[in-house]
Amino acid sequence: MPSSALTFKKSIATVSLSGTLPEKLEAAAAIGFDGVEIFENDLLTFDGSPADVRRIASGLGLEIAIFQPFRDFEAMPDPIRVRNLDRAERKFDVMQELGTDLVLVCSNVQPAAIDDPARAAADLAEMAERAHRRGLRVGYEALAWGRHVNRWRQAWDIVRQADHPALGLIVDSFHTLALDDDPSGIAELPGDRIFFVQLADAPKLSMDVLSWSRHFRNFPGQGALPVQGFLDAVLRSGYRGPLSLEVFNDEFRAAPARLTALDGLRSLIHAEAEAGHGSGLPAPPVCSGIEFLEFAVDAPARERLSGLLSSLGFHHAGRHRSKDVDLYRQGGVNLVLNSEEDSAASEHFQMHGPSVCAMAFKVDDAARAIARAEALRCVLWRERVGDGERRIPALRAPDGTLIYLVDDKEARRSIWEDDFHLFAELPSATQPLLGIDHVAQALPFGRMDSFVLFYRTVFGFVPESLWELPDPYGLIRSRALVSPEAEPGHGVRLPLNISESRRTATGRFVSATSGAGVHHVAFATADAATLVEDRLAAGAPFLPIPANYYDDLAVKHPLDDKALDGLKQRELLYDRDGQGEAGGEFLHAYTDSFDDRFFFEVVERRGGYRQFGAVNAAIRMAVQAQLREGARPELYLD
Amino acid sequence: MPSSALTFKKSIATVSLSGTLPEKLEAAAAIGFDGVEIFENDLLTFDGSPADVRRIASGLGLEIAIFQPFRDFEAMPDPIRVRNLDRAERKFDVMQELGTDLVLVCSNVQPAAIDDPARAAADLAEMAERAHRRGLRVGYEALAWGRHVNRWRQAWDIVRQADHPALGLIVDSFHTLALDDDPSGIAELPGDRIFFVQLADAPKLSMDVLSWSRHFRNFPGQGALPVQGFLDAVLRSGYRGPLSLEVFNDEFRAAPARLTALDGLRSLIHAEAEAGHGSGLPAPPVCSGIEFLEFAVDAPARERLSGLLSSLGFHHAGRHRSKDVDLYRQGGVNLVLNSEEDSAASEHFQMHGPSVCAMAFKVDDAARAIARAEALRCVLWRERVGDGERRIPALRAPDGTLIYLVDDKEARRSIWEDDFHLFAELPSATQPLLGIDHVAQALPFGRMDSFVLFYRTVFGFVPESLWELPDPYGLIRSRALVSPEAEPGHGVRLPLNISESRRTATGRFVSATSGAGVHHVAFATADAATLVEDRLAAGAPFLPIPANYYDDLAVKHPLDDKALDGLKQRELLYDRDGQGEAGGEFLHAYTDSFDDRFFFEVVERRGGYRQFGAVNAAIRMAVQAQLREGARPELYLD
Repeated sequence: MPSSALTFKKSIATVSLSGTLPEKLEAAAAIGFDGVEIFENDLLTFDGSPADVRRIASGLGLEIAIFQPFRDFEAMPDPIRVRNLDRAERKFDVMQELGTDLVLVCSNVQPAAIDDPARAAADLAEMAERAHRRGLRVGYEALAWGRHVNRWRQAWDIVRQADHPALGLIVDSFHTLALDDDPSGIAELPGDRIFFVQLADAPKLSMDVLSWSRHFRNFPGQGALPVQGFLDAVLRSGYRGPLSLEVFNDEFRAAPARLTALDGLRSLIHAEAEAGHGSGLPAPPVCSGIEFLEFAVDAPARERLSGLLSSLGFHHAGRHRSKDVDLYRQGGVNLVLNSEEDSAASEHFQMHGPSVCAMAFKVDDAARAIARAEALRCVLWRERVGDGERRIPALRAPDGTLIYLVDDKEARRSIWEDDFHLFAELPSATQPLLGIDHVAQALPFGRMDSFVLFYRTVFGFVPESLWELPDPYGLIRSRALVSPEAEPGHGVRLPLNISESRRTATGRFVSATSGAGVHHVAFATADAATLVEDRLAAGAPFLPIPANYYDDLAVKHPLDDKALDGLKQRELLYDRDGQGEAGGEFLHAYTDSFDDRFFFEVVERRGGYRQFGAVNAAIRMAVQAQLREGARPELYLD
Repeated sequence: MPSSALTFKKSIATVSLSGTLPEKLEAAAAIGFDGVEIFENDLLTFDGSPADVRRIASGLGLEIAIFQPFRDFEAMPDPIRVRNLDRAERKFDVMQELGTDLVLVCSNVQPAAIDDPARAAADLAEMAERAHRRGLRVGYEALAWGRHVNRWRQAWDIVRQADHPALGLIVDSFHTLALDDDPSGIAELPGDRIFFVQLADAPKLSMDVLSWSRHFRNFPGQGALPVQGFLDAVLRSGYRGPLSLEVFNDEFRAAPARLTALDGLRSLIHAEAEAGHGSGLPAPPVCSGIEFLEFAVDAPARERLSGLLSSLGFHHAGRHRSKDVDLYRQGGVNLVLNSEEDSAASEHFQMHGPSVCAMAFKVDDAARAIARAEALRCVLWRERVGDGERRIPALRAPDGTLIYLVDDKEARRSIWEDDFHLFAELPSATQPLLGIDHVAQALPFGRMDSFVLFYRTVFGFVPESLWELPDPYGLIRSRALVSPEAEPGHGVRLPLNISESRRTATGRFVSATSGAGVHHVAFATADAATLVEDRLAAGAPFLPIPANYYDDLAVKHPLDDKALDGLKQRELLYDRDGQGEAGGEFLHAYTDSFDDRFFFEVVERRGGYRQFGAVNAAIRMAVQAQLREGARPELYLD
């Protein structure tokens, strides 16, 4: 951490949170914000006076950083100009009752507004002078869809021209970056002339900027805008005021306010640290892979799941020294089946049925990773352990799944030797799995941004591009978070899937387990054909792939008949990326799902293929649906 | 109906419907489509051969009208050209197995495609010649995002240049209208050179055309594109092939296939009739108002609701001759409280709790309206009646609410005199209500398009623009369907509200009543101030409006202190549209909700105000939420 590190006050606009005004204030305070922006509509709908709001906020330890917005003020023709100044005086009354000294004036959007920066400057100077007499200040912000002023530099030129100590500039990352405007010049401004800074991110969407702004903004790190560069420029100016989140988002409006507030604070802490400031955030862990996955099961589910794992070539490799916990292993893959009563796993089983209750990431430094997670307001978890057994540091993902952190620096096998009676190892030739290639999770609708932020900030994972997968019963949106080091057989890859429809495989998972969680686990192998052929012979329930798929594959890709036949006989799906010699290939097969909850996949990556076979997901989902619904052609073909 | 009326075969693309391929075929057949377009992905994911699809379709009485799409074919550089022709031959095999003679080739989107219409024509002629040898045909369509060909006229020029009898043009309303392209020239084409016509509508959205097309298309009449003008031009060409719906829509993917198929067929029947063809569709009714609303209640709910109605100035005006049904009346408003056991109302009560189970529209000709509804595949309903009682024709709205049709030509009061013991009328001076101004409905998520189509086609109502209303717990989208004749005190206005969030007032209504239905009823008056003042004195539970609202109103509108105070003392909200003298005004007050299910509103329209006070909805929803949640400022102010 540089010695110049500063800690900024952190604030959030009430419009970013769901609920009534008191609920919003309560959530912001409970999560640890220093202040709030009072969004005018939240005040208008509140059944109490501005002084009541001041008392509630102050009782909660919250500062009211700003009152906003004051619209359509500057550069109006004359009769309206006078009325606008009266309007300002009425709002100054409100501000004084609220106990805030700053108001945000956003650039005029009215068709009647005059395109005259000098006139705008004169109006704002007059407003600032009136504010000044009351000990108040005015901040002027360029709206991206302002009638004549929509860039920060235009707003700054007007502020400079007005030249009044009670008038300053307000900058907002969304309004700047949505227009692809360059924020770097903000660094050259005098920092004390910037009165307030609003931060928001957004996904890249090609739509009109107003709709984009009103519905799809999100917190820094959740979207695709270069918010960090914007913040760096702002802080280089010498700005020392609050960093405040202003987000308009349909999903945030509907989500519990405390969850949103937690994400907001996590986002600000991370952005501040990335800018070289804040009270200390250790570097993210280097995640080299997944050490194990733990399944919560009861005794009958354990029997069935161990049968499924056996058919996939896993062997019973160990038994926990003190708990009702078994280890199944193949090559680099460790799967733990936990049926211990009165444990975190049994609690998970009660709530969600048979499911993955924990993932263990191999990291370079578990203690540092835990310190980072704690600084980012994650919930840490300490398991009960028996005498001499290892306590593995852990935290909870946003869905409650445990994430264990297994230290790569220590002898990796020791967690098994410490806690398990291990049985004799089998010859490695009989264990063709290399490791866990990826773990796909199903998320409840509206929670994608929250999970992306968690994995991106806590672990430093990188979000890949968004895919849309057509399930027969609705669309799935899928986005993978990948550790920067991920190479075949190495690193962590977590595709996150979400569906508006409750009838899709993802939607059904979320309903069935009443939450998010691991929906499928993909194992890496160097030879999918041999592996699947052997496992089919052992009775593994690989999904039957329709013949039409292979007919179309022959048309799409230059595969010879032998290659095609090899795929077809083994129910293997195929994809390639890149062109010709540079192209990578992907061979994969899925199992049917276990209790309509989770399923397994075997994947072979050739030549640097980086994706997840998304083009074939529609086939998998249709076949799983046909098996589930019994909607087989036989029914129609008598 | 013109004597030249033709009936066209009606078809739907499998991509428009949810489910597995057999489910899609079954739904299209059950609803009454003549044929389907087989969308290639639905075939690839199907666990049976193309011949199996043919057998299923034929068993269901469905023709396979076309196989689609064949992509990225024409004008490719040489090595690919040859492969593409091979690719076509493989797909011809599939078509012959499927038993369809037509394939849709959509214009090439590949960067490698050559910008050379002559080359495109030569390639398509070669493909058509190969198709011809097998008795097949090729249709060429301009995709709106085609690399070089994206307008129907470019595609037509290429088809004409290729000059092969087995090559024709395919036109699609979305691809044409999304680019604001003029379809009128299609009327000049030789109709037999148009091989196929695809119809889709879409809401006006400012986004890239590919995303718009892939997620937001809907059926003709559900969106805002001038599909009817497109269809008129196509039919003037002499085209006599099928009319087919091709819609990509996220909500349709998730909705039950039969519901979507029914909407699709209704949309086609309507579009065909509007074009002056089809097997006869009587004109829509002229709806002059709402004769009554019927509430399903049990005895305790009846007591409470009659108490609420009394406080609003209603009087007990009659009792049904044979049923446990009461009439409450004020001025032009009739409200029926039905607590008859073993009735449609009691069934409605069992399922939805106290709620509006029927609306009665006053129409110019009930028999004609019923005939139209039947032709548009509506579900009609016949009530049980006692001796000498009137049977009122009725149909079911998409949510199951009954819509009675009361014939304006007959003596309007007779339905009351026929069926009710009427008590002595009160002096009209004591009954300040003029009628029902509007009836707002809450719809389940994903069903807006379905309801818009129903009211637009069956009743000829006109959809007004979309409003977004911020409930404290999520966004509400609101769109009113209004009878063309609607004037204050006249006509029918039905705002339809929808919310993705289950925590909003709309979302809670849908959850609580497990369906859609009437969420609030607004009564028209000529003097809201006097009415509300009298009713507040009688204990009517009008919502308390926050003082902050009036402070802001004073800033927004040129209201003098007396006017403002008059509003404030009566909990009246205010809006105006237009400017100055031309401006209309709106005064309205809401009641608290009855069992968190429905509530009432009193409205006064002055000077041609046409909206619904949407700007004030946020206030209403916040106050209702505060009353409901007990999130009152007192809690924070001790």
